[in-house]
Amino acid sequence: MSEPRIQTSSVAPEVLRRTREIVEPALRAAVAGLADERMRLIASYQMGWQDADGQPTDSGGKAIRPGLAVLSAQACGAAPGVGVPGAVAVELVHNFSLLHDDVMDRDVERRHRPTGWVVFGEAQVILAGNAMLTEAVRVLERDGAAGRRALPLLLDSTQLLISGQSQDLDLEGRWDVTLEDVLCMEAGKTAALLACSSAIGARAAGAPEAMVAGLSAYGQELGIAFQLVDDILGVVGDPATTGKSSSSDVRAGKRSAPIVAALRSGTPAGDRLAAMFADGPPDTDSDVQTATELVREAGGLDWAMTEADARLARAMTGLERLGLPNASAVADLVAVGRFIVGRDR
Amino acid sequence: MSEPRIQTSSVAPEVLRRTREIVEPALRAAVAGLADERMRLIASYQMGWQDADGQPTDSGGKAIRPGLAVLSAQACGAAPGVGVPGAVAVELVHNFSLLHDDVMDRDVERRHRPTGWVVFGEAQVILAGNAMLTEAVRVLERDGAAGRRALPLLLDSTQLLISGQSQDLDLEGRWDVTLEDVLCMEAGKTAALLACSSAIGARAAGAPEAMVAGLSAYGQELGIAFQLVDDILGVVGDPATTGKSSSSDVRAGKRSAPIVAALRSGTPAGDRLAAMFADGPPDTDSDVQTATELVREAGGLDWAMTEADARLARAMTGLERLGLPNASAVADLVAVGRFIVGRDR
Repeated sequence: MSEPRIQTSSVAPEVLRRTREIVEPALRAAVAGLADERMRLIASYQMGWQDADGQPTDSGGKAIRPGLAVLSAQACGAAPGVGVPGAVAVELVHNFSLLHDDVMDRDVERRHRPTGWVVFGEAQVILAGNAMLTEAVRVLERDGAAGRRALPLLLDSTQLLISGQSQDLDLEGRWDVTLEDVLCMEAGKTAALLACSSAIGARAAGAPEAMVAGLSAYGQELGIAFQLVDDILGVVGDPATTGKSSSSDVRAGKRSAPIVAALRSGTPAGDRLAAMFADGPPDTDSDVQTATELVREAGGLDWAMTEADARLARAMTGLERLGLPNASAVADLVAVGRFIVGRDR
Repeated sequence: MSEPRIQTSSVAPEVLRRTREIVEPALRAAVAGLADERMRLIASYQMGWQDADGQPTDSGGKAIRPGLAVLSAQACGAAPGVGVPGAVAVELVHNFSLLHDDVMDRDVERRHRPTGWVVFGEAQVILAGNAMLTEAVRVLERDGAAGRRALPLLLDSTQLLISGQSQDLDLEGRWDVTLEDVLCMEAGKTAALLACSSAIGARAAGAPEAMVAGLSAYGQELGIAFQLVDDILGVVGDPATTGKSSSSDVRAGKRSAPIVAALRSGTPAGDRLAAMFADGPPDTDSDVQTATELVREAGGLDWAMTEADARLARAMTGLERLGLPNASAVADLVAVGRFIVGRDR
């Protein structure tokens, strides 16, 4: 035990490139297996493989969830392939939820392209999302005993994902939002599927339930940490890397974690922010700047960053304690985890 | 073999009352098992169990699909309970699709109540549909080996259902629709889930695959026959029983089977109808009446009724040939089949 269990030599983009290579053929086969041509086209567009005319493109996402799924199988001592059906399933569920969320949120751009409903219309995109969700289940159903073990994880996290989006929509119109409301929503909307991704390969591999639960907790903490960092960027802005304009969440009057932490801080700045928001979201650039400064002054950004760091630390400690058999895969999980939360540099 | 295999003494409403009693506790338990309160409320509203405020009501549907599922298990010699998880799953999928279709079609009334999206908003209703689809899979997943056998039937028919709705939306805007296009759409949109319902209990029971396939074919033919009769009512109207106003499909310029059969008949009446439709759907009452008369004169209604009768006859012949072990359950299947197509009087 003189070797440190958690290595730090892995480089996340390289790890994700490797896991993507392992998963992508099965993922493409699953989408190609959709019987309906229109559903295939919309799914391929959403995955970043085709443009609206069906021409090949290469604008896919980072494939973090499939990466975690493959690594979770490997970390428990299984071959990477054992994690592939679960990896395909979580990526299909992730993209189903993005397709549908963009309809509900009326978002018009994702990954620098028009969102699915803008291109194909709302109804066909709802249907394509449904087809992707159904196909995700089919992929596990076809995987025999391993898929059967994995299926309950997928279904439970999908229900949490749905509930999280429902809560998020509900919070939008409310003034009495607590930090617990926000964290509960984020646990569903963001963390549930990352928890599933981090555990589904281990479950498919038949790993002991303590390992599966530990990996799930790893993904859960990471997911909250990731969302808190995303919330911070929604306040202070980082247009270069996120495509989000500065202070976009303040401008929208969104009840994200740092904003609610500020509103509930009991500080004079928090009270001033609440008074500003009582008249609706700030609408001039000067008001937006003032409100953003008040979020900072009331400690909202510090709270979110401290909480994110605590979550990340807890994730890493928990992972180390699991004592998983494949130390190299664990190092890869750590690298991907830090990368997700923007702590890889 | 002197006894006729197919009895005719069963009365469909009585059969469906009995199967509903068997299925409803499990169906209510599945909806109650949704973790999210809002999803439970919307699902309960859609099922006809609650009003928008959560007060109990009793405005549920006829529960034809769960009835077929239970009978298909019984017809193969199994206990009715063997068909219950499949019955719950098909009813959840049916109601998921109704919730979503009403959003896409902008329908505002169903079963004499406002549709879900009118009451709860589009986004929450899309989410509740997703939750019901996911729960349908979960119900089978929890049913052990029987549920595992049933699951592929459910998933495949769900994909066909999705494709059918996608095709239906696509046909709306097109002028070059053939009868094959319409029948293919109806095979997905209506027949696929009835085929699944008629076979899923048998599959769960572990019946020989020839029986499962035969029962699926029974539901498939019934489904097309049912849809053709529904299409006829959409032209000639039967507001008392369907809630549809007279000639509503003609007024909407819909490409339903009798209308396409008329347009493609090569008769002078069909050509006159095509000329009328070339300027868009008829908009005065007098034009609607003329167009409706042309559909009849061109043989569109006769074609649809003849085809529906042929499908129903084929369904019954096929069912008889299967020689299923429980003749009384087969008689119930026949009664429900005739009832679905409006041929029980």
